[in-house]
Amino acid sequence: MRNANRRFVLRARPEGLAGPEHFAEEPAAIRAPGPGEVLLETLYVSVDPAMRVWISENPGYVPRIEIGDVMRAGGIARVVESRAPGLAPGDLVQARTGWQSHPTLPASEVQAVPAGAGEPTDWLGVLGTTGLTAYFGIRAVAAVRPGETVLVSGAAGGVGQIAAQVARIEACRVVGIAGGPDKCAWLTGELGLHAAIDYKAEPDLAAAIARECPGGIDAFFDNVGGATLDAALANLKLRARVAICGRISQTAAGELYGVRQMGQLIGKRARVEGFIVTDFHERFGEGRIWLSAQVASGALRHRVHVLDGLEQAPMGLSMLFRGENMGKLVVRVAP
Amino acid sequence: MRNANRRFVLRARPEGLAGPEHFAEEPAAIRAPGPGEVLLETLYVSVDPAMRVWISENPGYVPRIEIGDVMRAGGIARVVESRAPGLAPGDLVQARTGWQSHPTLPASEVQAVPAGAGEPTDWLGVLGTTGLTAYFGIRAVAAVRPGETVLVSGAAGGVGQIAAQVARIEACRVVGIAGGPDKCAWLTGELGLHAAIDYKAEPDLAAAIARECPGGIDAFFDNVGGATLDAALANLKLRARVAICGRISQTAAGELYGVRQMGQLIGKRARVEGFIVTDFHERFGEGRIWLSAQVASGALRHRVHVLDGLEQAPMGLSMLFRGENMGKLVVRVAP
Repeated sequence: MRNANRRFVLRARPEGLAGPEHFAEEPAAIRAPGPGEVLLETLYVSVDPAMRVWISENPGYVPRIEIGDVMRAGGIARVVESRAPGLAPGDLVQARTGWQSHPTLPASEVQAVPAGAGEPTDWLGVLGTTGLTAYFGIRAVAAVRPGETVLVSGAAGGVGQIAAQVARIEACRVVGIAGGPDKCAWLTGELGLHAAIDYKAEPDLAAAIARECPGGIDAFFDNVGGATLDAALANLKLRARVAICGRISQTAAGELYGVRQMGQLIGKRARVEGFIVTDFHERFGEGRIWLSAQVASGALRHRVHVLDGLEQAPMGLSMLFRGENMGKLVVRVAP
Repeated sequence: MRNANRRFVLRARPEGLAGPEHFAEEPAAIRAPGPGEVLLETLYVSVDPAMRVWISENPGYVPRIEIGDVMRAGGIARVVESRAPGLAPGDLVQARTGWQSHPTLPASEVQAVPAGAGEPTDWLGVLGTTGLTAYFGIRAVAAVRPGETVLVSGAAGGVGQIAAQVARIEACRVVGIAGGPDKCAWLTGELGLHAAIDYKAEPDLAAAIARECPGGIDAFFDNVGGATLDAALANLKLRARVAICGRISQTAAGELYGVRQMGQLIGKRARVEGFIVTDFHERFGEGRIWLSAQVASGALRHRVHVLDGLEQAPMGLSMLFRGENMGKLVVRVAP
């Protein structure tokens, strides 16, 4: 088993959606750690919408992944061999493992996971950048206040499920948008949202938002962009805040959707703001404490959608853009 | 001359541009002031892009003007007769006179103009809501800092000319967008802007902005909206701020332009925010002191485009949307 490092590298840049045809399995020899390095065995890797941006020609805010490079990804791993103080074989760590089974990394890029702190996958989801994105987007960017009406798009996705609940725990009235009756039932049932809108069943999304948010939206956490953003802008309240986390409808779109409701921002004195979770790096500790406390109390629930086997990762990426995941998507690499 | 109050009332709601066909001259008897009221003789009235919004079916943020109502407008007037303490015949005042020659108003809605404080038209322009809109838009909403690159659209218009100079006085590098070589020469010559872009001569506005703002835009003060906003979004710097003051290209448009570059907000962590000057009502004193000081020192220049005769006001409104004004447009009602 430890004879080879199983790796998935970028084979070709996609034009539209990314899928298995854009990646190739390229095993390599396991590299023994040098001084200050650790050899890891990856347990889980993350599959995120942002990956489609990372493999594009010009991602803008992060270095692009070159053809032949191992696919970049957050992961949870066990230390197999260590030449660094403070990390010992068997330790559970989080690191940017990439889509590979046995990465060798500098110890400075590896972070120990506290013992007994939730499931390993929590560190890719609710306690990882996924949860932190939701926390800072809702609390710092959208700056929600108790009693406000908050709309979340992609509410059954990895970030959306947490964002909706952060707002609910902050005593907001929360409405989620998701695709299909199963996701919507889960949002209002298990996650305790006040209402859910099945966008696939609504011929007029703006009208559906108006129906579920009578009086309008104080804050909108947007993962989808395009027509969803337009429909939300048409329903803003005075001094509304829109936090743009992502725009999965546009990431791989051939022609970009044109947003027509920008004029609403004037009369409503509203704000639209984009953000990236790493901007809040210095406050990650605060975010993790809050999220851990809510998970521990049972107030914050989350769902992890697990695919089995590293070979599933490229297909998982395409699932995200077809809305086939429910909750945070991860791939189990080792048992 | 004082036998009738010359008035222009709304005759019909426009579909597209507003012009003379949407207003009617309807003289009325001059009404003697009751207790607490003053009779005014209007000297100048304002003509503003926002008026096109006020006469639409659903202006949103202000009460609409009904068919048969006198057109709402800021004005400068002299007191003719007063039944209110503190206001005497001959006093120069500013008030919402509307497009009429002899309004009778409650004294509480009339504000004395300080003696010797500039030209009467200054109180409709640089020291009025026009100047205050520019001041708060640049300083409070766009929150510019010395050394930043600031783009202003509609830069040769009433608000734009002041906004560009507020940014220039704040030691920013200022680029204005205007239509035609005369306006552009005036912006870089008389007003001291660092560069001007003639949008009528540029086949690709985004490329022109990139050329004049190498490295991108820190702040954008937008009066135009639509394709101009899209071109600016494509040129944002990290943490850029866009202050949406107006969108004259869209106010009377049949079909709204779709803004395609919203995704820039994520990677650039940028903010787009709409505002209305009355939101800053409590800080108007601060704004007027600053603007007065800059006018007095000669740092802040402004141009008033004067039309002669109240009957020119409806035509003036259509001029704004054809870009035929240079500077703040006012109508001289009495000599």
